[in-house]
Amino acid sequence: MTLRTRPVTVDDLELVCRHREQMFRESNAPGRTEAILKSQTEHFRPWLAARLQDASYFGWIVADAGKPVAGIGLMVIDWPPGPSHPTQDQRGYVLNVFVEASHRKRGIAKMLMEMADREFAQRDVAFLILHATRMGRPLYERLGWSATSEMAKSLSDRADR
Amino acid sequence: MTLRTRPVTVDDLELVCRHREQMFRESNAPGRTEAILKSQTEHFRPWLAARLQDASYFGWIVADAGKPVAGIGLMVIDWPPGPSHPTQDQRGYVLNVFVEASHRKRGIAKMLMEMADREFAQRDVAFLILHATRMGRPLYERLGWSATSEMAKSLSDRADR
Repeated sequence: MTLRTRPVTVDDLELVCRHREQMFRESNAPGRTEAILKSQTEHFRPWLAARLQDASYFGWIVADAGKPVAGIGLMVIDWPPGPSHPTQDQRGYVLNVFVEASHRKRGIAKMLMEMADREFAQRDVAFLILHATRMGRPLYERLGWSATSEMAKSLSDRADR
Repeated sequence: MTLRTRPVTVDDLELVCRHREQMFRESNAPGRTEAILKSQTEHFRPWLAARLQDASYFGWIVADAGKPVAGIGLMVIDWPPGPSHPTQDQRGYVLNVFVEASHRKRGIAKMLMEMADREFAQRDVAFLILHATRMGRPLYERLGWSATSEMAKSLSDRADR
């Protein structure tokens, strides 16, 4: 392996879309049909394009001998101050953590998560969140993450939204 | 009981701050000292003032014979399209659900949550989230909410942030 890690750029739009879609596909969560995965990518693409452009979505891509094999996305999101971060009105959000199957179990995701911690610390963001796939959860737990009290409800019974 | 429900306004700033602080106090979550509760309120107040002003924070206050006894806050937050809401780049967020001890077990929180569903449906927001206290969770479950995969990590070991 000749791993190089570099910041994500606007030129990575399709790569990040592919990583995200594959991450959700491999999560094997109930109800995630191919139609839903494709639909979310079509709507995620323009959302991401704008946020790569203004750098509100940032992070890294890992390449092995020039070929991208992993990535991570970070955002700083507006959030009401509360007991978890009483003096700050923002949270760090980690998303689209993905490592190609060929490169798993080599510490790449761990390295990216540690880079995320350092990046958010440098930006003075004290409280971080993410949504874990079943595959990611054990790593996140080892790195000091724990489940929150978040709950969700879908108002739609249409499979296409 | 002579209950009246009205929209929250900029004049409710202190009331919502009080509801929120008391909600967190009664949650009895570990590490929520009075100092932290007071600190989050001090930082939440200006955050909320701006969002009541531009109506990005909305919701209702319930009064009994003119005296406020309950409230709920709602926001529409920017979020990347994903499998839970493939065609939408936003989520509904429910926060600061609070009923005074004197008025509990009378269906007020249930009524406010049902109003929230209708309000978000009217705004075409299909996917909703909240963070539940231990007290609130059973009600939310009865109303169709379920736990998500959210995880969190605090980068700070300082109790004041």
